[in-house]
Amino acid sequence: MMQKIRIGIVGYGNLGKGAELAVKHNPDMELVAVFSRRHLTETNSGVPAVFLADVANYREKVDVMLLCGGSATDLVEQGPQLAALFNTVDSFDTHAKIPGYFATMDQVAKEAGTVATISVGWDPGLFSLNRLLAGAVLPQGTDYTFWGKGVSQGHSDALRHVPGVKEAKQYTIPREAIVSAVRSGQNPASSSAESHIRDCYVVAQPGADLAAIETKIKTMPHYFAGYETHVTFLSEEEFQANHTGIPHGGVVLRSGKTSPAVGHVIEFGLKLDSNPEFTSSVLVAYARATYRLAQHKFTGACTVFDIPFAWLSPKSGEELRRELL
Amino acid sequence: MMQKIRIGIVGYGNLGKGAELAVKHNPDMELVAVFSRRHLTETNSGVPAVFLADVANYREKVDVMLLCGGSATDLVEQGPQLAALFNTVDSFDTHAKIPGYFATMDQVAKEAGTVATISVGWDPGLFSLNRLLAGAVLPQGTDYTFWGKGVSQGHSDALRHVPGVKEAKQYTIPREAIVSAVRSGQNPASSSAESHIRDCYVVAQPGADLAAIETKIKTMPHYFAGYETHVTFLSEEEFQANHTGIPHGGVVLRSGKTSPAVGHVIEFGLKLDSNPEFTSSVLVAYARATYRLAQHKFTGACTVFDIPFAWLSPKSGEELRRELL
Repeated sequence: MMQKIRIGIVGYGNLGKGAELAVKHNPDMELVAVFSRRHLTETNSGVPAVFLADVANYREKVDVMLLCGGSATDLVEQGPQLAALFNTVDSFDTHAKIPGYFATMDQVAKEAGTVATISVGWDPGLFSLNRLLAGAVLPQGTDYTFWGKGVSQGHSDALRHVPGVKEAKQYTIPREAIVSAVRSGQNPASSSAESHIRDCYVVAQPGADLAAIETKIKTMPHYFAGYETHVTFLSEEEFQANHTGIPHGGVVLRSGKTSPAVGHVIEFGLKLDSNPEFTSSVLVAYARATYRLAQHKFTGACTVFDIPFAWLSPKSGEELRRELL
Repeated sequence: MMQKIRIGIVGYGNLGKGAELAVKHNPDMELVAVFSRRHLTETNSGVPAVFLADVANYREKVDVMLLCGGSATDLVEQGPQLAALFNTVDSFDTHAKIPGYFATMDQVAKEAGTVATISVGWDPGLFSLNRLLAGAVLPQGTDYTFWGKGVSQGHSDALRHVPGVKEAKQYTIPREAIVSAVRSGQNPASSSAESHIRDCYVVAQPGADLAAIETKIKTMPHYFAGYETHVTFLSEEEFQANHTGIPHGGVVLRSGKTSPAVGHVIEFGLKLDSNPEFTSSVLVAYARATYRLAQHKFTGACTVFDIPFAWLSPKSGEELRRELL
């Protein structure tokens, strides 16, 4: 019997709770503790909840730490602090800041002798892998990424800041005609605004001016202006019944040619009932690879691009070749 | 200026000709020669055609040899012979014999100090990668593979052996209702026969008994019996006009759950105008990775499972993180 990979979770929001569930589906892993800046009284699974300030006591007890905080404020601080103590996996997703974050994590991890796998999830993550693969196979081609149908937390927050709005959710929906055009081998030139519809479900405060809310939303710069935006008002009961989930998904396509009249389309798509439960499942698979990298004496930062898929699976190379190749 | 990766091609059928095209799309590579058992007078690109018996003279001139013969008879012989002399990439696709072929190639390559990347293409290859990835991310789930719409060479050959048939082509078509059910998160139990339709286009010999041909086809064991099979008779002109291409493609899906009521679907699909041109483009991307493995002093056999995607791309790690992550 191999020793199980000992996992720790830092942060107990939606992503941390998803990771807690995901570890259970992997018999070669065990969850040691959940670490939080808050004083949690208990966890869903019953594993100990530990105050984050005491995390250093777990250096010998945790093989891989899953960093389940947000990119904007949590990871930029916690990432380097925890990579100095543990092998880590995180979902850092502020695209423009990835090179800087990689450099910081690489330096900290090399000095500490740890592995820091950054920017894991589905975008960045699985979508990035498919962009790389498709571009390497079809050098002459065009990439397309469509997001949705899914909840955009940022846009939902923006809706909730509109005066008169009590509760709201925004779904990003790819325009099916453009996705179909790409699938059929055409190369439509289209911006993100042309390719996506923004579908808003809004619970208004009693007595609010609905027309004013709708105008305010549709003309909001950066978020909704320039997009086809639909606003549906509904009761709080309807909202609670139908709009509390966090589904997401999307499609990455590359359309390319190998000869003037010979085209190909490569497509990777996700349809997710819960964005955080899926994202954390990806983190857990990459925790296994991170553990193996550490066992092979690798140190420093890496991304999904640097990890062979064989290391994501609990199966041996022989089993993988026999069963999945 | 980096030195270009020097590529050789063994075998000059559809796959070898596709590889010849694919190398041209990769500015970091150059094609040195095409090797054949036949005495070729020329090649499409103008590179030298060399008799395969003289291949050993090219040991210092070729970095990676693309083996473009068939699995059934060519690769089982040529694979070990050429892996003793060169780094190789092949598309060995006899699923049941992969473990044995891997063992042979691994031993030969280790002794020779070469790298042998085997079973590259889209199935085995890109489809296998997606089966592994999806299974690692969603351990609780079900895999589905659908092939087509595409030409099955084996089934087309079988049609041509029916008495009275002059020319024929068989397209395998996935049953859209079953694919849609999987996409929507259902888990239909269905065999390959239930999931695919076999669509046959047949040019009959003059005066042949069409009804007899159709019955013979539809009742042919292993190939068509048990499948929904359509037979369309057409003139030789129509056949030449509409059925000489070699399109293919398919979809790999995994449907899985992270909680009892929370499901996800991961999908990878290909739509290919030319099966051999696409397959050889995958071989060429893996030639780049094979070259890098050799530069890192790796020796032995490997598969797509063992190679980080970063090594498939001509871009640096920094470029990949900035542009594609």
